[in-house]
Amino acid sequence: MYTYRLTIAYDGTRYRGWQRQQNTEQTVQGTVEACLSQILGRRMQISGSGRTDSGVHASGQEASLLLEKRIDAGELLRKLNAALPEDIRIRRVREMPAGFHARKSALAKCYEYHVDLREKQDVFTRKYSFHFPKQVDVEAMRQAAEKLTGTHDFAGFTDLKEHDDTVRTIYAIQIAQEGEELVLSYYGDGFLYHMVRILTGTLLDVGTGRTRPEQIRAILAAKDRAWTGFPAPAKGLFLRQVYYDREELPAEIRQKGREE
Amino acid sequence: MYTYRLTIAYDGTRYRGWQRQQNTEQTVQGTVEACLSQILGRRMQISGSGRTDSGVHASGQEASLLLEKRIDAGELLRKLNAALPEDIRIRRVREMPAGFHARKSALAKCYEYHVDLREKQDVFTRKYSFHFPKQVDVEAMRQAAEKLTGTHDFAGFTDLKEHDDTVRTIYAIQIAQEGEELVLSYYGDGFLYHMVRILTGTLLDVGTGRTRPEQIRAILAAKDRAWTGFPAPAKGLFLRQVYYDREELPAEIRQKGREE
Repeated sequence: MYTYRLTIAYDGTRYRGWQRQQNTEQTVQGTVEACLSQILGRRMQISGSGRTDSGVHASGQEASLLLEKRIDAGELLRKLNAALPEDIRIRRVREMPAGFHARKSALAKCYEYHVDLREKQDVFTRKYSFHFPKQVDVEAMRQAAEKLTGTHDFAGFTDLKEHDDTVRTIYAIQIAQEGEELVLSYYGDGFLYHMVRILTGTLLDVGTGRTRPEQIRAILAAKDRAWTGFPAPAKGLFLRQVYYDREELPAEIRQKGREE
Repeated sequence: MYTYRLTIAYDGTRYRGWQRQQNTEQTVQGTVEACLSQILGRRMQISGSGRTDSGVHASGQEASLLLEKRIDAGELLRKLNAALPEDIRIRRVREMPAGFHARKSALAKCYEYHVDLREKQDVFTRKYSFHFPKQVDVEAMRQAAEKLTGTHDFAGFTDLKEHDDTVRTIYAIQIAQEGEELVLSYYGDGFLYHMVRILTGTLLDVGTGRTRPEQIRAILAAKDRAWTGFPAPAKGLFLRQVYYDREELPAEIRQKGREE
């Protein structure tokens, strides 16, 4: 068997998330699999690094593909991009060592959340950011982010009841302000269902003064969804990168990972 | 009569251009007029600063509105934005002196054209830039742009046959390179049908070496559409600003205007 790794970007606006469903046309995985099947002449399946919700975007989703015969990666890349709709693009196709699996081999992920603080919603970024026209205290948000970083039980930071293990490690949360745009970058070993969106809502509550940074420890300890913030909407969220190699992580985060 | 000026941003992707047509829902002007009519309780019409083609965007289109009664501009702004679809936003409503007309009072306009030079098309900018994955000589393009600047007969730079006056003044063409994105800004007293798109195609032909900057004079002199470049697609084009006051123009362009 030959193993291939597909790096995929998509505008999630039109899709019911990543995960294949009955109606393949409406999910990103289903759409990629339909094109692959057409190109390779038989029914193909891929494994993603994880699900993304309806409306969530990706600049660096990863998927693995197992094939019985070796193929030309560059040719597959071209054929796939020719067949796919323009809101899904394959950025790279690589042959990988046997055993590589997009989800199981992943060491860390980076999600990015975009917040538009401008008074009026912008027509060009409305699908790619959360319009939150408020004054926010970015320094207070950074203090709260620092307290969320590390290994914690994030049971209060998910909307799914049946996670059996809710302990996760957040390596870093970086908050960059570019004019009236906030970009929150979350690096972690994995994220629960809705976790990044609830973390963002919680941090924005700190930004507006509804929650104080000192309350974060109690909120984590409560392990109760009622204590955490609102789920920021899907459209501001991007799966930016999946890491399979410790050396690919930004140096300051690699460092933090070691301290745990 | 009271005169109001509406500053409008729109994502042109879904629309058949600015200009009202039979099916009002499909044009920007028709959509704004339908909302205005609903809010003010009778059939209202507005005058735009000029048409934009199907798929062309605007961050600063302007329209004038005449009313028999004085209204609260802030209230109209809020009601309009509540009624309009999210791909059209009213940025400002201002009461103007009698006689103001969005088209007739305009002194100059700025159009912006976005070119994405990256190898692969980006899923997030695909509706807002022209994907042109080539090596371009930006310095050659700037030389050509300099030769296009000034007062010329642009008869070869339009796809409409029946313009009666094809002389226009371009105050400046600025070409900014930000990473692998080119932003071409055109300042002029007015532009013919498709003129900015044909200017951009002509400049990109210079960028790729198909046309030399020294040929621009002959191309202008030919006054023939067969000599000019391809029309760059609508989706990369933005009407950025309409100027009603000489003092609002960037200083270096005001200067140039005076030299003519």
